[in-house]
Amino acid sequence: MNAEQHAVNHELPSSPPPALSDAHVVIIGMGLMGASLGYDLRGHVRRVTGVVRRPEAVAETEASGCVDDATLDARAAVAEADMVILATPVRTILRQIQELGPSMKPGAALIDMGSTKTEICRAMAALPEHVQPVGGHPMCGKETAGLAAAEPGLYRDCTFVLCPLPRTSPQALKLAHALVAHIHARPLVLEPERHDRLVAAISHLPYLAASGLVAHVMAVAEEDDRVWRVAASGFRDASRVAASDIRMMLDILLTNQEAVLAAVDDFIGQIGDLRQALTSGDEDRLRSRLEAIAQARRTWEKNRKTH
Amino acid sequence: MNAEQHAVNHELPSSPPPALSDAHVVIIGMGLMGASLGYDLRGHVRRVTGVVRRPEAVAETEASGCVDDATLDARAAVAEADMVILATPVRTILRQIQELGPSMKPGAALIDMGSTKTEICRAMAALPEHVQPVGGHPMCGKETAGLAAAEPGLYRDCTFVLCPLPRTSPQALKLAHALVAHIHARPLVLEPERHDRLVAAISHLPYLAASGLVAHVMAVAEEDDRVWRVAASGFRDASRVAASDIRMMLDILLTNQEAVLAAVDDFIGQIGDLRQALTSGDEDRLRSRLEAIAQARRTWEKNRKTH
Repeated sequence: MNAEQHAVNHELPSSPPPALSDAHVVIIGMGLMGASLGYDLRGHVRRVTGVVRRPEAVAETEASGCVDDATLDARAAVAEADMVILATPVRTILRQIQELGPSMKPGAALIDMGSTKTEICRAMAALPEHVQPVGGHPMCGKETAGLAAAEPGLYRDCTFVLCPLPRTSPQALKLAHALVAHIHARPLVLEPERHDRLVAAISHLPYLAASGLVAHVMAVAEEDDRVWRVAASGFRDASRVAASDIRMMLDILLTNQEAVLAAVDDFIGQIGDLRQALTSGDEDRLRSRLEAIAQARRTWEKNRKTH
Repeated sequence: MNAEQHAVNHELPSSPPPALSDAHVVIIGMGLMGASLGYDLRGHVRRVTGVVRRPEAVAETEASGCVDDATLDARAAVAEADMVILATPVRTILRQIQELGPSMKPGAALIDMGSTKTEICRAMAALPEHVQPVGGHPMCGKETAGLAAAEPGLYRDCTFVLCPLPRTSPQALKLAHALVAHIHARPLVLEPERHDRLVAAISHLPYLAASGLVAHVMAVAEEDDRVWRVAASGFRDASRVAASDIRMMLDILLTNQEAVLAAVDDFIGQIGDLRQALTSGDEDRLRSRLEAIAQARRTWEKNRKTH
């Protein structure tokens, strides 16, 4: 049936997607990211349809107000869409690109919001020609997941990475930019491999470091459980992302192994350098290194606020 | 002169310190911690005197309203005090215990707020007998330091570790507890070595880990400075403490080397375990490990809120 539908689609003339305001947007996955996007889009586009997995989520999603309608039938929904947004974990996105892409209308845009881009853009490159794929990754989130955590304005001022493919039409890329502009995010076009190297450094490594910090405290607590009681705001912030959704993080780590491992190795080297400066008692070296690091952190924070 | 004053003091009868409300409290160091304490105490004790280092800080401190009066003369101030609070970096505290302790009134309490306790309590043990020392460490703070960052209520609900010495009188310890109760902190009595092991895990290691994360991003940025632009809230929180005051942190690391190095080594081992699970592709092992870590972090956060 897939092959047949694919063939039918190919015989239709491929038309450019309409303007964002005329688009029927189908969002697959009504978690934090998908539902928040729904809140921002509903009423500003022709229609927002949310695709959910659990039967009871249809009514929940419709009641929340983030969509015009919700459905369990992803294939039927994407066949009507001018723009399909994949807002599921990375490995689910990889499967959905294959499963749903062929059912899309000719010329319709397929944008994902997955946290790694190399494997996703590779899967997008293999889509039937009538689909217009654009890789995407909004750099925001919360440690609480799910529909209940979703909110309008989540994407405001966040960096939204776009990874157009060589095959992506100018119209589809323009539509992706219109989406980013509508939610008040800041677009940043990057190649997928470059994106994955950069987010390994600023997101995937911090997750593993935070997890290592919690693992260390767990080990200390085996002998002295007072350790949890003395933990304060420093530990809270440094370890926050260790409480992230495991399914999401596992998909990220497993689809960005090479860059993550390189980041971990450099990080262990950096910690080793600091350890060495501390052991050697070379206070000047330790001070100047920590000073440079603190300064870089402060500069980033300042630039971020004035961006 | 020190020796003479010491001798004079020793000839006076040692009397218990008065109730907190009758006490003249002298705070040495009008940074974030000292000045915040001043705000909480002023008007609720007989007098709050702040000791500062820079001549221009006398007027600044008095104008801020966190003290009844400020002075440059630490020795004269502590001679009048019923309770002296050392709110300076750890190695300054070590020096001030030696320099100022002998000038204190018989029976007066000496409490410090330094972030490591073993070396400080050792220095306190060597004080003349007429001084009543109690090691202290309020587990709170901000990444912004200084008088301008100080605020009333900073200590509310934070854990305030107390390390009485074997020589500490019951009255002096009671006064220390009255101080902790007054600022709405939660007292926790610990031996100094135990305190230092625990804070290595939840504070000093997180500082080095955060610094290592920033150092890694700096290394990546040498080849691709877009990395700073994609950094978002995950990186912000995980790296926040890397911007801490270097002088304070250097004192902490250098007076808690043994526990910090042990924590770093275990942490590198924990990260290595996660790395190994990722490299081996043993997804079940990686998932169950990350799940246990996330669960421990969530349990801590929950207990903390309902404490």
